[in-house]
Amino acid sequence: MTSTRTAAVPRSALDRLLRPESVAVVGASEAPGKLGSVMLAAVGRDGATATYGVNPRAERAGLHRSLRSVIETHGGPVDLAVLCVPASATPQALREAADCGVGAAVICSGGFAEAGEEGAALQAQVADIVAGTGIRVLGPNTSGFFRPGGVTVSFVPTVRHLIPGSVAVVAASGGMNHALSFLLSEHGVGVGLGVGLGNSVDVTATDVLRHLREDPSITAVALHVEAVADGVALLSAIRAVTAVKPVVALVVGRSNVSAFAASHTGALATSWHTTRSLLAEAGAVVVDSETELAEAVAVLSRTRLPATPAAGVGVVTAQAGPGLVVLDHLLAHRVRVPRLMPGTQRELARVLPPMTYQANPVDTGRPGPAFDAVLSATAADPGIDALAVYALAEPDAVDLADAVHRAGVHERLPVVLALGGPRAARTDTAARAADLGVPVLAGPTALGIGLRALAADARSRWLRSETAAERPILAPALPPVPPISLPADEAVAKDLLDVLGIATPPRRVCPDRAAAHAALRELPHPVAVKILDATVLHKTDIGGVHLNVGSTAELDTALDALDALGAPAYLVESMADDGVDLFLGVRRDPVFGPIVVAGLGGIAAEAIGDVTIRSGAVTVAGAAAMLDELRCAPLLFGGRGGPVLDRDEFARAAVRLVRYLTEHPAVDDIEVNPLRSTAAGLIALDAVVLAASHRLEGELP
Amino acid sequence: MTSTRTAAVPRSALDRLLRPESVAVVGASEAPGKLGSVMLAAVGRDGATATYGVNPRAERAGLHRSLRSVIETHGGPVDLAVLCVPASATPQALREAADCGVGAAVICSGGFAEAGEEGAALQAQVADIVAGTGIRVLGPNTSGFFRPGGVTVSFVPTVRHLIPGSVAVVAASGGMNHALSFLLSEHGVGVGLGVGLGNSVDVTATDVLRHLREDPSITAVALHVEAVADGVALLSAIRAVTAVKPVVALVVGRSNVSAFAASHTGALATSWHTTRSLLAEAGAVVVDSETELAEAVAVLSRTRLPATPAAGVGVVTAQAGPGLVVLDHLLAHRVRVPRLMPGTQRELARVLPPMTYQANPVDTGRPGPAFDAVLSATAADPGIDALAVYALAEPDAVDLADAVHRAGVHERLPVVLALGGPRAARTDTAARAADLGVPVLAGPTALGIGLRALAADARSRWLRSETAAERPILAPALPPVPPISLPADEAVAKDLLDVLGIATPPRRVCPDRAAAHAALRELPHPVAVKILDATVLHKTDIGGVHLNVGSTAELDTALDALDALGAPAYLVESMADDGVDLFLGVRRDPVFGPIVVAGLGGIAAEAIGDVTIRSGAVTVAGAAAMLDELRCAPLLFGGRGGPVLDRDEFARAAVRLVRYLTEHPAVDDIEVNPLRSTAAGLIALDAVVLAASHRLEGELP
Repeated sequence: MTSTRTAAVPRSALDRLLRPESVAVVGASEAPGKLGSVMLAAVGRDGATATYGVNPRAERAGLHRSLRSVIETHGGPVDLAVLCVPASATPQALREAADCGVGAAVICSGGFAEAGEEGAALQAQVADIVAGTGIRVLGPNTSGFFRPGGVTVSFVPTVRHLIPGSVAVVAASGGMNHALSFLLSEHGVGVGLGVGLGNSVDVTATDVLRHLREDPSITAVALHVEAVADGVALLSAIRAVTAVKPVVALVVGRSNVSAFAASHTGALATSWHTTRSLLAEAGAVVVDSETELAEAVAVLSRTRLPATPAAGVGVVTAQAGPGLVVLDHLLAHRVRVPRLMPGTQRELARVLPPMTYQANPVDTGRPGPAFDAVLSATAADPGIDALAVYALAEPDAVDLADAVHRAGVHERLPVVLALGGPRAARTDTAARAADLGVPVLAGPTALGIGLRALAADARSRWLRSETAAERPILAPALPPVPPISLPADEAVAKDLLDVLGIATPPRRVCPDRAAAHAALRELPHPVAVKILDATVLHKTDIGGVHLNVGSTAELDTALDALDALGAPAYLVESMADDGVDLFLGVRRDPVFGPIVVAGLGGIAAEAIGDVTIRSGAVTVAGAAAMLDELRCAPLLFGGRGGPVLDRDEFARAAVRLVRYLTEHPAVDDIEVNPLRSTAAGLIALDAVVLAASHRLEGELP
Repeated sequence: MTSTRTAAVPRSALDRLLRPESVAVVGASEAPGKLGSVMLAAVGRDGATATYGVNPRAERAGLHRSLRSVIETHGGPVDLAVLCVPASATPQALREAADCGVGAAVICSGGFAEAGEEGAALQAQVADIVAGTGIRVLGPNTSGFFRPGGVTVSFVPTVRHLIPGSVAVVAASGGMNHALSFLLSEHGVGVGLGVGLGNSVDVTATDVLRHLREDPSITAVALHVEAVADGVALLSAIRAVTAVKPVVALVVGRSNVSAFAASHTGALATSWHTTRSLLAEAGAVVVDSETELAEAVAVLSRTRLPATPAAGVGVVTAQAGPGLVVLDHLLAHRVRVPRLMPGTQRELARVLPPMTYQANPVDTGRPGPAFDAVLSATAADPGIDALAVYALAEPDAVDLADAVHRAGVHERLPVVLALGGPRAARTDTAARAADLGVPVLAGPTALGIGLRALAADARSRWLRSETAAERPILAPALPPVPPISLPADEAVAKDLLDVLGIATPPRRVCPDRAAAHAALRELPHPVAVKILDATVLHKTDIGGVHLNVGSTAELDTALDALDALGAPAYLVESMADDGVDLFLGVRRDPVFGPIVVAGLGGIAAEAIGDVTIRSGAVTVAGAAAMLDELRCAPLLFGGRGGPVLDRDEFARAAVRLVRYLTEHPAVDDIEVNPLRSTAAGLIALDAVVLAASHRLEGELP
């Protein structure tokens, strides 16, 4: 084995890790079945990579006694060292690799942070060596990575069965890297790179994503996320990647799996809901299972919509029942299936038999010679941005791939096929469709998922582009905000909201009963009378809020009650109009920094999890789109005779609050609850501002 | 072709339809590709079925000019006529078949109720012939049915690729019958019968289910539901079937697909949420997609848990990442993954390397010789009712099916395997597992879905058995209820609740102001003062409710306001204690008859769809279990310091209300909202009773 390295162009450390031209397997072994033996064989199988085995007790020709001797043979430092030594021997081996100018190392062993105190100490040593030497490390506790058709740095021999292709799998765990890569292969989707991150002592998903952005051989990324350490950096990387190629993300940890997860990665799981929401905001298509991931990637690796807020899908189906499943899936996930234009319907009526449904879905009956014309007519409808086509594969019926090819619709818009029927009857069509760059899925629900992915990917790019280009006026800079004293009472909190342009009721801070009576005289009636005490977080729970006070007698009764609570002062304010109560909070997430959380007010929404979350980087357009995610959205826009919420007013409030939080590290949490939507606009009826040291636990959804 | 019929045992009409010994294809044709030609060939392919072609213009030997001549040849009436004639010729052909003593007919043509007025008239003619003659009809608008390995009455030639087996597919549409059957085959699950119901002018899913209950060759049923006409009968059939074999149901229509659905089946879609809930109550395992259906059926057709309320699942995984996906799926769907007993963990520690997680999930690392012992130890844990096992299929690692076989765990409890890796590496293991009766799925989420299905199936049988055997005392007969006048005002409604044993606040009906003042003096303070008018359904919306009235001045203000509304009388009642507000309603569903609907009070729960639904047949145990389905459940049982709801008290209220509705057809709807959960128990703060003719539209979730 000789060096093929030219060294003319300086290569990045991630290149040397993930596209190594020379690899040394440290701990290489002759014993069959041992890690060092399996790994050496796997790396060496790729003829293009210079491969060396290192073992201090080397007895066999071809194994080197040390990395130094590899340098001599190779004529310079190798790109990558694969450490197949026990955890306890790893720090020393890593230091030696760094000393030998090796660019990066893969640490396969377990026994680090995931395995208790002793392992955590070993992992800290590894981290120190990384920090001190600049060597990059993948792992520990990973099965490695592979490039089907290229180098394999993985001890799983079956990866040679993977179809080479253009999808990168970036998985938190080695096991999921393999599970996802094989699943993609089974969906006919080729893999260009599969990486299992393991404990991520150094190289994280963020690093790999940045690397992949620049890799022209990769057209889509399948991302598996367990725990995120570098939230803000990850979001930034996803934004950068999705601007040029799609990312589909599966986030694990919906339930409380932390005991097992900690044992597995050594990291604590963060909020699942927050992670999903913020990844989606950054541009990833977030899915619910590994099969959904495979289906979304199968589509997005081959075709992508232009940025558009709400793509219209044309559904063409040869069988009504499966077409109904596709339609149901799309509508339930708020994907538009617009009624076709009269002209389109006339054209369809011309080519289809009567008694089929032609408005969208288009029910063709068994595909016949007219199928090309149906595809062309539906694709030409001005409301249609993408086509979803389902049929049972039948040997004597029209071949769907051929029909697409003849109609040429795949050159005008994204077309996704789904075929029912036996595998044998589907294979040919699927192969021909693949040649056209047209994705083929396996059933009606998969077709729905694929189209959802297309629409979501296009929408998130639109949200970013549209905001940047057209609506900057809606996101003015923060006004100058005078410093506030912390802890803040309700009056201080509402004064802050006033400065931020969020309406509050007319009010008076009343140090004594006389002031309260004066306030009752001067403010519009009726009023709310509340305890004013920054140390009381839940005023209502202790009887500290009296509503609808209209008379002096009622006021005295209320004040008596507040005095009994030891109220240091009273807040008297006019009652607001009726409306729908929301909550809007900005919080400092331990992983992602400032976030915005909103939902329906009251106890139900947070308990049910019907909340919407965005990052501190949220735009006004992005904040306005939050409301669409709430299941209770119909209630906010005139449902049950209620007021219609002004999206932009809500969005400006959210953006200003989170910008304030971003610029004021002493504040940890601002909760406006309720933020009432009235016919006259939004008004904040209560607000809490918490200093960084007073953070409430357990209130994040 | 000669008759093989013995006629010794009288056969049911459904037997003659779905297990025909003789079939006549009416409209048989010689022209290749025509329905009558394809169908004749398909039926004739099965040598065991006597097959005849009928065509009045018969020119070819072997085709008969009429059904009469078939009788002569056959030596008696054939079991089944397959009508391959246009819709317009169908009624005449059907009548002729009935006249010839044919037991049943399949009508393949479209052009009936799904295709407008003219088609609906033809379908009505078909219905009349069914009613008048007793002939049974499958269809119209169906591709038919098939028994892989037996008779095929379907015009789709690829059904010959289906694996024969023991699962019955009962699909609303012919297209979904095929899609599901092929999908099952692809999952290695054999199909014993696949039926597409089409327009269901006669034979419904209910009929087929009843038939399948008695068919020993069928071990599980995959049910696809679009619209239900005979709700109560369907539920009864599902209860009967699930007592002896599992039913997995996919209900379409989550979104508003009614325009297309009506075009497809001629029937209006009913409430998706209600259908799903009631099918699950009756014992079906309800799934969300056709892939989930295939995975659930793959498991339940091979193994079933004994009836148990909350099965404990042991998760054994060779890779931590996929194991985490399984765990997350199970916990997110409230399936128990109990911590293993100390003795089990000691045994696992003995056979597994240190640093793996052994508490459940059990992380084995790459399967080695100890794998058998891991399976045995986990299966022997007293908290474990079923095993979920995941591994990447690797040629040199221990074969999972062999390990199960050696450990013999599949003989003690249900074991489900999932294999990652390339298809080639999985095939052998899957085949050996199938021989053991052990289901094999394709990935971690599929494994989670399979175990969920096992647990759900076991729980619904437990809910029925447990109630019947142990808790009859909780469901006493309804007390005698005096007749109530309709429309009922709030006082009448609350008197009814009192009789039914549902607590209400102390109150007075006050015809005038003096009576109201007397009530204020006599009732515990403070009181609510409300307009009493049966014609006012939303009292709060019009200002007809005044809360927290404590003084005579406040009472006069309230009465003035009510007088301004033209209140015919006042209701004065004591305010209840604080608590959590629920709603509990019983309604007459157009498809399923009386149903119970409950959720959190206020506007959010119904808007979000966080409601739980049961049928009029609900038991006390079943009603108590409703609460577990609510996402807001934590709020009901002491969450945020609130009161703990008494499940049995809630359940008795629900059961009594729905029994009352069942026995009183003049009442259509009783809504208790709010039904407040307080420290002292449940108390109904408002109630509405609607007569059958005053039914509110659009309030069903």
